[in-house]
Amino acid sequence: MTAYDADNIFAKILRGEMPCHKVYEDDKTFAFLDIMPRADGHTLVLPKAAARNILDVGLDDLAAVMATTQKLTHAVMKAFEAPGATVQQFNEPAGGQVVFHLHVHVIPRHEGVPLKPHTGEMADPELLAKHAEKIKAALEG
Amino acid sequence: MTAYDADNIFAKILRGEMPCHKVYEDDKTFAFLDIMPRADGHTLVLPKAAARNILDVGLDDLAAVMATTQKLTHAVMKAFEAPGATVQQFNEPAGGQVVFHLHVHVIPRHEGVPLKPHTGEMADPELLAKHAEKIKAALEG
Repeated sequence: MTAYDADNIFAKILRGEMPCHKVYEDDKTFAFLDIMPRADGHTLVLPKAAARNILDVGLDDLAAVMATTQKLTHAVMKAFEAPGATVQQFNEPAGGQVVFHLHVHVIPRHEGVPLKPHTGEMADPELLAKHAEKIKAALEG
Repeated sequence: MTAYDADNIFAKILRGEMPCHKVYEDDKTFAFLDIMPRADGHTLVLPKAAARNILDVGLDDLAAVMATTQKLTHAVMKAFEAPGATVQQFNEPAGGQVVFHLHVHVIPRHEGVPLKPHTGEMADPELLAKHAEKIKAALEG
């Protein structure tokens, strides 16, 4: 496996060098909205520690990421009144990974609504900001 | 959320009341082949504890499931000479969940090969038995 590259875009977000629509942070994890959401409320959960994907992450960091994933699954379902959620995690290009800092996708789902295709288009930043507020409110409520 | 139903098919597999192509077991987790694989080597990782999905699983059990998921991701990639892997976990029917005992899908992936569609057809049991042996060998190797 290729070594971790500290210049990946999520590492820059974690260092505050790039903006994001942050929804949650604790000592080991960080969560923000996917800017190309496959459904409204599509959130990414990352470890703060350097890890390329599930293959090299430390088990403590992986456990922390999954605890945050559980929290965010509840929150996005509440915020978007979604009866379900899909959790995905991609490893290496063949596995669907595009950014090489471990991240777990948490996607609120409604009955019969397929995931939006990957268009490569970014969502409206104002809409993402509103969605981030809804998720933060759900986390607090 | 609906309560855990101990009559679900994975609970029966965990109790040994139904057969499966087992690849791994430890004190908290159990892994076997999906009988409707979306790629060769498609493995499911479960907690032994009763949990419907990510929404109600205890954090210790979730951490154990993910530690086993990491182990199996390495193993299926090795066993099937796959350069990547996709990890998925579905919650509630709207989220894609069909069997209501928490399970994580670990799917070895090859560049440019899409996941097979859900046909509802079961794989050849002899082929699954061979694949299980390959994964067990990779776990030991």
